[in-house]
Amino acid sequence: MKQNRIIKNVRIVTPLGHEARKGEAMRHLHTVEHGIIVIVDGVIEYAGEEKACPAELLALHTYEYTDGEGRVALPGFVDSHTHLVFGGYRPDEFSWRLKGDTYMSIMERGGGIQSTVNATRSCTADDMAAKARWFLRRMSEMGVTTVEAKSGYGLDLDTERRQLEAIRQLADDPSTGLNVVSTFLGAHAVPTEYKGRTSEYVDYLIAEMLPAFRDMARCCDVFCEKNVFEIEDSRRLLKAARDMGYSLKLHADEIVTLGGAELAAELGALSADHLLHVSDEGVRLMAEAGVVATLLPLTAFALKEPYAPARKFIEAGGAVALATDLNPGSCFSGSIPLTIALACIYMQMSIEETVTALTLNGAAALGMAAECGSLEKGKRGDVAILEFDNINYLPYYVGMNCVRTTIHAGRVVYDAPRPE
Amino acid sequence: MKQNRIIKNVRIVTPLGHEARKGEAMRHLHTVEHGIIVIVDGVIEYAGEEKACPAELLALHTYEYTDGEGRVALPGFVDSHTHLVFGGYRPDEFSWRLKGDTYMSIMERGGGIQSTVNATRSCTADDMAAKARWFLRRMSEMGVTTVEAKSGYGLDLDTERRQLEAIRQLADDPSTGLNVVSTFLGAHAVPTEYKGRTSEYVDYLIAEMLPAFRDMARCCDVFCEKNVFEIEDSRRLLKAARDMGYSLKLHADEIVTLGGAELAAELGALSADHLLHVSDEGVRLMAEAGVVATLLPLTAFALKEPYAPARKFIEAGGAVALATDLNPGSCFSGSIPLTIALACIYMQMSIEETVTALTLNGAAALGMAAECGSLEKGKRGDVAILEFDNINYLPYYVGMNCVRTTIHAGRVVYDAPRPE
Repeated sequence: MKQNRIIKNVRIVTPLGHEARKGEAMRHLHTVEHGIIVIVDGVIEYAGEEKACPAELLALHTYEYTDGEGRVALPGFVDSHTHLVFGGYRPDEFSWRLKGDTYMSIMERGGGIQSTVNATRSCTADDMAAKARWFLRRMSEMGVTTVEAKSGYGLDLDTERRQLEAIRQLADDPSTGLNVVSTFLGAHAVPTEYKGRTSEYVDYLIAEMLPAFRDMARCCDVFCEKNVFEIEDSRRLLKAARDMGYSLKLHADEIVTLGGAELAAELGALSADHLLHVSDEGVRLMAEAGVVATLLPLTAFALKEPYAPARKFIEAGGAVALATDLNPGSCFSGSIPLTIALACIYMQMSIEETVTALTLNGAAALGMAAECGSLEKGKRGDVAILEFDNINYLPYYVGMNCVRTTIHAGRVVYDAPRPE
Repeated sequence: MKQNRIIKNVRIVTPLGHEARKGEAMRHLHTVEHGIIVIVDGVIEYAGEEKACPAELLALHTYEYTDGEGRVALPGFVDSHTHLVFGGYRPDEFSWRLKGDTYMSIMERGGGIQSTVNATRSCTADDMAAKARWFLRRMSEMGVTTVEAKSGYGLDLDTERRQLEAIRQLADDPSTGLNVVSTFLGAHAVPTEYKGRTSEYVDYLIAEMLPAFRDMARCCDVFCEKNVFEIEDSRRLLKAARDMGYSLKLHADEIVTLGGAELAAELGALSADHLLHVSDEGVRLMAEAGVVATLLPLTAFALKEPYAPARKFIEAGGAVALATDLNPGSCFSGSIPLTIALACIYMQMSIEETVTALTLNGAAALGMAAECGSLEKGKRGDVAILEFDNINYLPYYVGMNCVRTTIHAGRVVYDAPRPE
């Protein structure tokens, strides 16, 4: 489903490069007025001024055409942290939380992750993939062209495999219109079968699951948190995963300050995520080690928690990514518009930093910054055309979708309805 | 464009009645399992259990059919406070505000309302209506079937008239798929021509505008705020409007505690709106007088202001409505999903109270509770069918649209795309 396409008459706004933009560089977006983007077989051949575009390139192929009518073209958004594939829903827990139950106390009551684990264990891979397609459709409408999807609701070999199979189905199906990237999160919770025997569960993950899923997942992730997988168990798991060739990610310092950020830096993880309670030392070490700080403001919003300290990371010279954390528990939301509003209004991120965080730095958090996340030659032809001619509309149109057209590998996968 | 339609196999969830639900009664939603809604010529003839529906009614007419597949059917949402019709946009002010400028200081710099006034004065009614159609389309997608639209960006006779003409165009055009209700807000700001002569501007409003627009607007509204229209000018204007037969609304106590709520109670206004800084006495008097408290959490969210005290109004036995305040300045958003999230998560409103606030109480805030806002015989056939079978999904699906199908006067005006 890759296409040749020429997108003309756009204002190109994009970060540049093949790695995460750090610190002050997050502010620097490359802007091209009267821009044109030429996509050949799904890959950008040219993105720049129309008048400087080589005429022979335009004559070399047959193209589909999109007229941007002067609107902004951004790189397609990269949602680098989601739990896309799961059984069941948990709407009732939401009201429990509104009445004061904490994440950990719900989990201790056998709600939380475990209830989704139970529902997921009774689902086929086809069930899960079918359900996820609905979310993917909505993401695509909001300009997302790359989405990470984690396992972690099986917590046993068979169910984790079915989750990863569902993710592979979605990844291999061009009709979804997004790139779907797989992360193994067997260490999402300690399953009830292993209650009180966390270390044995980690042994099982290392001995059975990591080898079994090596070809099914790009990254290995762990829920590194007090009373779940603490530092030593997390380190042991991630080192084994790294040795087998997985890239590393961590759920770190979300609930208490445990040192997940420091561990991410020590191990050279691609990213540490959440980070509401990161220590100053953790911020510094992550910035030094080039670990992307993936911040998930929708979760903080839904849980009424303080937002992660985005400015600290940026001021320390670190790279910040933003993602949705779509999941059936703490944050059943894939809203890119609300993510943008929270970043700009409540996390003191500038609009430019927010764009970088949702594109190139999201790609870097998946180890894919050479493939996507910016509009430049050699990257996949993933483009979000806005309704507007200026990126200042992104937070201004509060919580509303600014995306008019989403293009994935040169193919139009969403085009907003126009009034009659 | 009114239709006969049968909506079957739905779980009907609705407040009941022909006036605002107050205090504890806001919690009481009427629920019907295995429900059916029969709409004849755009009006509900029956909403209740399918098995109790009179067979002769089903045989009496030719109907279109909608199968709800067990999902929730709510009354179409009523957005009872918007500034829908305007010239220009103000995305850049958003960044000023993020850097600390206040609403009043932006206004004093000649930005704020005045910049929209300048843009609106150069627009035709057709321009404004065309632009508003795009917002209306989006509202319709979120289940809104009745929307109030205010003038107030003209501040002179000709431009206020063109705004009201644009609103009338939208109201008279069945293709918009919403009921559009008009409010005259000539007292939105003191125009520069009258700087320092507020009282003279109020004279002009009373002498020239109120009589001219009597047939074009259902309500008269005023921006009652310190250094804009203070209590005495507001009282004078609203009394004149009332004498001419307008229903009354007030922007009250948004920025400082001025006594707008007390004035609303004194004059028997339909609603007082915003109310972030309402006094306890104002809360009590509004509840006693039956004035609807229309709360606008999107504006507070966008401005990083504290939310209005919804619980105080409910506990005082008052009626709360929720609306978006869509406008080009302080709150360029029509997001019903985010309004719901803010009400439930940040204003301690229950899901049931939130539904009542967005339906029947919104209708009451427009003096239309006998026409719409609930699913019962004699009301307009305005229905929002959710994607889900339970209203707990409304806040749980955080900031995301739960509406699958919107029906206005029996006609399907929105149907969500399904994944391929």
